[in-house]
Amino acid sequence: MENYEDVSQNDIESLHGKPLSGVISNSTPSSLGGSTKSSWKLKSIVTLALTLLTSSQAILIVWSKRAGKYEYSVTTANFSVEALKCALSLVALAKIWRSQGVTEDNKLSTSFDEVSVYPIPAILYLIKNLLQYYIFAYVDAPAYQILKNLNIISTGVLYRIILKKKLSEIQWAAFILLCAGCTTAQLNPSSDHVLQTPFQGWVMAIIMALLSGFAGVYTEAIIKKRPSRNINVQNFWLYIFGMIFNLIAIVVQDYDEVMNKGFFHGYSFITVCMILNHALSGIAVSMVMKYADNIVKVYSTSVAMLLTAVVSVFLFGFHLSLAFFLGSTVVSVSIYLHSIGKPQPQK
Amino acid sequence: MENYEDVSQNDIESLHGKPLSGVISNSTPSSLGGSTKSSWKLKSIVTLALTLLTSSQAILIVWSKRAGKYEYSVTTANFSVEALKCALSLVALAKIWRSQGVTEDNKLSTSFDEVSVYPIPAILYLIKNLLQYYIFAYVDAPAYQILKNLNIISTGVLYRIILKKKLSEIQWAAFILLCAGCTTAQLNPSSDHVLQTPFQGWVMAIIMALLSGFAGVYTEAIIKKRPSRNINVQNFWLYIFGMIFNLIAIVVQDYDEVMNKGFFHGYSFITVCMILNHALSGIAVSMVMKYADNIVKVYSTSVAMLLTAVVSVFLFGFHLSLAFFLGSTVVSVSIYLHSIGKPQPQK
Repeated sequence: MENYEDVSQNDIESLHGKPLSGVISNSTPSSLGGSTKSSWKLKSIVTLALTLLTSSQAILIVWSKRAGKYEYSVTTANFSVEALKCALSLVALAKIWRSQGVTEDNKLSTSFDEVSVYPIPAILYLIKNLLQYYIFAYVDAPAYQILKNLNIISTGVLYRIILKKKLSEIQWAAFILLCAGCTTAQLNPSSDHVLQTPFQGWVMAIIMALLSGFAGVYTEAIIKKRPSRNINVQNFWLYIFGMIFNLIAIVVQDYDEVMNKGFFHGYSFITVCMILNHALSGIAVSMVMKYADNIVKVYSTSVAMLLTAVVSVFLFGFHLSLAFFLGSTVVSVSIYLHSIGKPQPQK
Repeated sequence: MENYEDVSQNDIESLHGKPLSGVISNSTPSSLGGSTKSSWKLKSIVTLALTLLTSSQAILIVWSKRAGKYEYSVTTANFSVEALKCALSLVALAKIWRSQGVTEDNKLSTSFDEVSVYPIPAILYLIKNLLQYYIFAYVDAPAYQILKNLNIISTGVLYRIILKKKLSEIQWAAFILLCAGCTTAQLNPSSDHVLQTPFQGWVMAIIMALLSGFAGVYTEAIIKKRPSRNINVQNFWLYIFGMIFNLIAIVVQDYDEVMNKGFFHGYSFITVCMILNHALSGIAVSMVMKYADNIVKVYSTSVAMLLTAVVSVFLFGFHLSLAFFLGSTVVSVSIYLHSIGKPQPQK
């Protein structure tokens, strides 16, 4: 289960690339050009959905850990998530076709020009996941949790470079605070280990943060490149590549086990909940990419982390540390600064 | 010596009220109306002086702790600090009188109207120091160190209310960050004790923070009320009351000991260094009040706290924690935000 947590974390990230949606996009206009008010509403809904799903995901992980070990294969679980998302995309599309008919924007068939970039986020995550096995030679697990907050900074930097979107000075300050605040909130007595990280560990952590940030930003670029294209079609193609890459992982890693014990061996009720949650989270991430951006995604997942800790107090009797309160304060100020620090419109 | 640390900390604060200066004010124009450039320079010099003196003060405390216990009386040390500052004020004034002659602004004699408010900061600190003995019934020492950061917030609030000076929204955010950052930098494994502080402990900590903040802000109000009045005269009168109140403390607390063992019993080289340092710090605080403000003072002492930790790594082989780096980052961002967040001039 320990293993699943890592993979599930990667998965959240992998899935970022490959969104799709039935429920949400179906009930809202799929055109981006709507009024500012409805776009603001849409942005809020998808952000809230992502926050709640990410938070409940972390709670499911704690719950499953408490429930004991499950001997299911992680690769099949990841494949199931991709397949479920793909299926949900198709269901959503079918509904849209029935109500609106097949149009240029919502047809499933695609050109090589459109689809050729879709495997790139999946490949980036694959490389990152491979690296992950090696980083543990230099970094222990608690230190790795701390180092993962570098993702926040790398996402900001790559968002600026690749999407050429400006953040104001105050928003940059807010971003540094978000990273410091999240790390502070996660501090525990063994956190200082991270300071003993050797140089190679730092380099790998930074490379992994860049890969993860690049994959997220690149996915946003793909989705936003064709604003009028239906998000479910974009998701469908992203998830198809997710399925392919996870299938390869099953064959390479777990072929014998799956052949002997079966695909769904060891699955429990919690496993199914987690797969469902991951699928919906992936879709929510995708929606955030389409209707908001990577910055919103980073803030959303950070708030989810804090929310998880608070909920865990009630569910599992966890104790909140002083560091958690201080980190939460810094994150709150960061959110406030980000919102008031919008760049001035260029003259 | 443990005891002296507490008292010396109070003392830094008590002294805030009662500045005086020879060296610095003598070489710079004592009129406030100078050009913006020279006033900026003056502000920087006094701020730097305060930061370095506060920092070296903390280092002296660590050094003296390492050197072992000294059985000198804390009240006589405090009195010596006040007397030394008073003497330095007079030396500075004598120089000024010789070069500029006695004027309305630098004459020592004063009106009841001017001097009547001077005892107030000293009285506020006295009340705060009395409360300090009681707070330890509810709060342990590490928790008290953490709670002292409430001073930052109380100073900001009272600065706004009493001096009616505006802070911009960004500067308020920066102030909250300064408090959170300083607390984070001081986190250690026993910090979580503070969360078990009973209600009475919180109330007392807040009252003490308000008293300390009020004393600082009130001193600034006194000093700034007569901008053309020579700072050394203002200091002289503030320190006179400091001497009187500390004399009362000696009589009440240590009369027998001083009578039997002598006033300077147990003084060592470090004790003398500390008294000298406290006197100079007090003068620097006073200068900051005259030429800058309480906000600058709070930032200056916060940076001094971080500086002390870094210097202690080299001097005493201390280790810096991850929390220290995170707290320092937040404090740095806070300083940046404070500087860019100046309130817009009112129309």
